[in-house]
Amino acid sequence: MKHFPGDDDRKWQVLKSEYLFRRPWLTVRCEHTLLPNGNECPDYYVLEYPTWINIIALDKKGRMVMVRQYRHALGVTRYELCAGVVDPTDKSPMEAAQRELMEETGYGGGHWEEFAVLAPNPGSANNLSHTFLATDVEPLSTQHLESTEDITVHLFTPAEVMQMLSEGQLIQALHAAPLWKYFYLHRPAD
Amino acid sequence: MKHFPGDDDRKWQVLKSEYLFRRPWLTVRCEHTLLPNGNECPDYYVLEYPTWINIIALDKKGRMVMVRQYRHALGVTRYELCAGVVDPTDKSPMEAAQRELMEETGYGGGHWEEFAVLAPNPGSANNLSHTFLATDVEPLSTQHLESTEDITVHLFTPAEVMQMLSEGQLIQALHAAPLWKYFYLHRPAD
Repeated sequence: MKHFPGDDDRKWQVLKSEYLFRRPWLTVRCEHTLLPNGNECPDYYVLEYPTWINIIALDKKGRMVMVRQYRHALGVTRYELCAGVVDPTDKSPMEAAQRELMEETGYGGGHWEEFAVLAPNPGSANNLSHTFLATDVEPLSTQHLESTEDITVHLFTPAEVMQMLSEGQLIQALHAAPLWKYFYLHRPAD
Repeated sequence: MKHFPGDDDRKWQVLKSEYLFRRPWLTVRCEHTLLPNGNECPDYYVLEYPTWINIIALDKKGRMVMVRQYRHALGVTRYELCAGVVDPTDKSPMEAAQRELMEETGYGGGHWEEFAVLAPNPGSANNLSHTFLATDVEPLSTQHLESTEDITVHLFTPAEVMQMLSEGQLIQALHAAPLWKYFYLHRPAD
């Protein structure tokens, strides 16, 4: 993570730390903390996650490669950016993003750059989410999905994605933030 | 939540659901689910949270009212939007936002509108985060902080906030998304 002056100001001291859960998809620490103001918080919960990635991918015609899937916690099926987690075997977040785009959509190649780094929730989660901008990607393979993935692939013009973002259909904050940034920098034609 | 065509497509069936934790700041369900493709996921975790709110607040001089606080999960102190949760006693998300802005910053009054509704994480969390845009707010009171809140208040020009957003200092995705949207609609002068 990029650091800024004052990042370490007003840090809390950890008096006691224990794991409540250490399961593949749920790792929770409970910490007894001491604040600089002298107050204590006896049960502060921290969710541990791997680094996450997502991709703003544009094909050679400038269309955005989106996925659509059911999200069980919110209970809705929506369009999203292709996204995933950095596995221990991935050499970098960018390699993870290239692997995920290929697995979930079959698209690959093109030019890649890191576009944004965000925190899913700096109060409750310890991880970061990296967004990559991939241009000139092309269909190189078929999807290779895991058993609990039920994902379809869709191409939209930037104006169509902008429309879905504006009306609140693209609802996932970790995708909305880099997409609004992208459209701030590359305003789509009306 | 606003609904869109196809929101209910490809829904998973819940075969079994149990609470692992029901504590004030951590409520976790574990569900055994059946996917439309016939596959089962025996342990899908859903985090339950109240509705969250945050505020893009501008004073009468057009300065943005930001807060600065330590965030223990990520371990850094950063500038943020004023944010909080909808309490059971709040009549609406907007009322919660007005209460939080007053408690954390002492600012109030002005004109309020709902600006964005986002999902913190539709895969793992069941809640939404509402952003309100408040204009012409003014200092009406002193801060009223809880014992575990250690928050300072800062005024920035939109160009200064834009700078912090661009360089990745404003890192919380639930704040970055509505701020990029705001700057898409109201591009600050260079």
